[in-house]
Amino acid sequence: MSNIHSTVGIIGLGLIGGSMAIDLKRRGFASKVLGVEVDPIAAEAARTIGLADEVVSYDDCIRRSDIIVVAVPVGTAVKMLPEILDMFLEEDTPSGAFARTGSRSDAEEGVSPSGKIVIDVCSTKEQICKAVKYHPARKQFVSTHPMAGTEYSGPWAAQPGLFDGRACIFADQEESAPWAVQKVLELYGCLNMRPIFMNSSSHDVHTAYVSHISHVTSFALALTVLDKEKDEKHIFDLASGGFSSTVRLAKSNADMWIPILTQNRENVLQVMDTYIDKMRQFRDAVDSYDEDALRRLIEDANRIKKIIR
Amino acid sequence: MSNIHSTVGIIGLGLIGGSMAIDLKRRGFASKVLGVEVDPIAAEAARTIGLADEVVSYDDCIRRSDIIVVAVPVGTAVKMLPEILDMFLEEDTPSGAFARTGSRSDAEEGVSPSGKIVIDVCSTKEQICKAVKYHPARKQFVSTHPMAGTEYSGPWAAQPGLFDGRACIFADQEESAPWAVQKVLELYGCLNMRPIFMNSSSHDVHTAYVSHISHVTSFALALTVLDKEKDEKHIFDLASGGFSSTVRLAKSNADMWIPILTQNRENVLQVMDTYIDKMRQFRDAVDSYDEDALRRLIEDANRIKKIIR
Repeated sequence: MSNIHSTVGIIGLGLIGGSMAIDLKRRGFASKVLGVEVDPIAAEAARTIGLADEVVSYDDCIRRSDIIVVAVPVGTAVKMLPEILDMFLEEDTPSGAFARTGSRSDAEEGVSPSGKIVIDVCSTKEQICKAVKYHPARKQFVSTHPMAGTEYSGPWAAQPGLFDGRACIFADQEESAPWAVQKVLELYGCLNMRPIFMNSSSHDVHTAYVSHISHVTSFALALTVLDKEKDEKHIFDLASGGFSSTVRLAKSNADMWIPILTQNRENVLQVMDTYIDKMRQFRDAVDSYDEDALRRLIEDANRIKKIIR
Repeated sequence: MSNIHSTVGIIGLGLIGGSMAIDLKRRGFASKVLGVEVDPIAAEAARTIGLADEVVSYDDCIRRSDIIVVAVPVGTAVKMLPEILDMFLEEDTPSGAFARTGSRSDAEEGVSPSGKIVIDVCSTKEQICKAVKYHPARKQFVSTHPMAGTEYSGPWAAQPGLFDGRACIFADQEESAPWAVQKVLELYGCLNMRPIFMNSSSHDVHTAYVSHISHVTSFALALTVLDKEKDEKHIFDLASGGFSSTVRLAKSNADMWIPILTQNRENVLQVMDTYIDKMRQFRDAVDSYDEDALRRLIEDANRIKKIIR
């Protein structure tokens, strides 16, 4: 099975989809990249930048692609994935590219007539894996989370090399056909990503702690300082490098983050409650000039040094 | 008055003091740098690295220097500054380097017999300016806050170019002698800093919002995730670039930050209360699946894009 003859369809030519489009084509994994973009301005930009070989319709993309990457906000992806798997079942002719022959039956191998694969790249995994759990074409779906990004969005934010050296989570990979997982490993191998296998609910706990909460704390920090800016003009003259790095994620896009926060509601609430409690401990220590408590809190927090370089 | 003949004494050879030592010497502002470091391990390191021409005693430093830079945590600086100004008054012989002659009297010019200058570089300004407000040698003190740094501390963290292009606040500069302010402007000019003039209480409000709060939010974030790490091993495998930049300041030193938070208690409490309130709004919106409220909050926060690039 050669990579060079794969047509890759990417639904959503934003930061993630667009960046995948660039490197999968340049590095030879995809012979052709078909892009789908519902927003007309973004579609025009994707065409101008040349992110995909063709910007096509949704149906066209699914019909013509060997691998389909769903790179849309998770709320939309949850609805889209069962539809795509339905279309896999309806297709009559195998595309051939990934159809496998061998001694075991197609059913054992988990191969549908078309042999196509769909992957998602969303930041929450539990709801999306639930949505297709009992779908007859489930084995052709591989759920992934490439842990890379910036605070920018849209085709304008796409860049080569975005994924190099970063981790990519494969969620509930035992629900996918081994040949499909293998193919998707090759795809992420081309992007220089390091695969990590994890069940979807563990993924959502972990990302709540090491990704989702830091976005919320940045949003809250931006809101706090912007509120003050109303009274105190030019407060940002003093913004230092430390402030900029802490508030950077507050530039992140609402369309992406609303579904992440609501889909991962329980984990996010738990981490927010712990976080608010820590803030209150700091507040009370400052309020009561309790230097011992402040030292304990800060020195406990300093243990992060051993983990984050 | 030539720069080249100034002996600069730096009390505290940490990140800030050490970095000033490097550039003031290399760039020719100081003919000699005398350093004071009470911590014996840090003193040995400063000697080994060669941050100062000599590491000397506190009394020696004040006696032999034309400009003294107090680069110690603000709690210590508040006690140290009146002592240093006392020593200025006690000195019999003018050092000569900055003694001015002219038609106006020394009293009018705010020149003490020695003509020496002391500056502080602390992150809070109101308490420190209050502590010396009525001191007879007050005019020889210039209160500054060079807005530069990293999350690291100690002589090991000192680096050339740390201050280049950053802002330096001069607090309550009308309380200092014009010739002293002029000299200190030259010092920060050598470090390529952009001066901003501000009263000490405005300084403390602004820095609470654009610096102190982001340190507290980082500490709280580190504590939250480290707590979870106890139950969920390897949670940090998933830590992304976004998390790292948000939590970076949590590596900051307790000896520096305890006095900042307590000296700037009222402003810090106010900003923390606003911040906790914003976090609660997020929490409640997530809890009730209120997507409209989440959109308002995130899009409001996104306005930070116009300010922080």
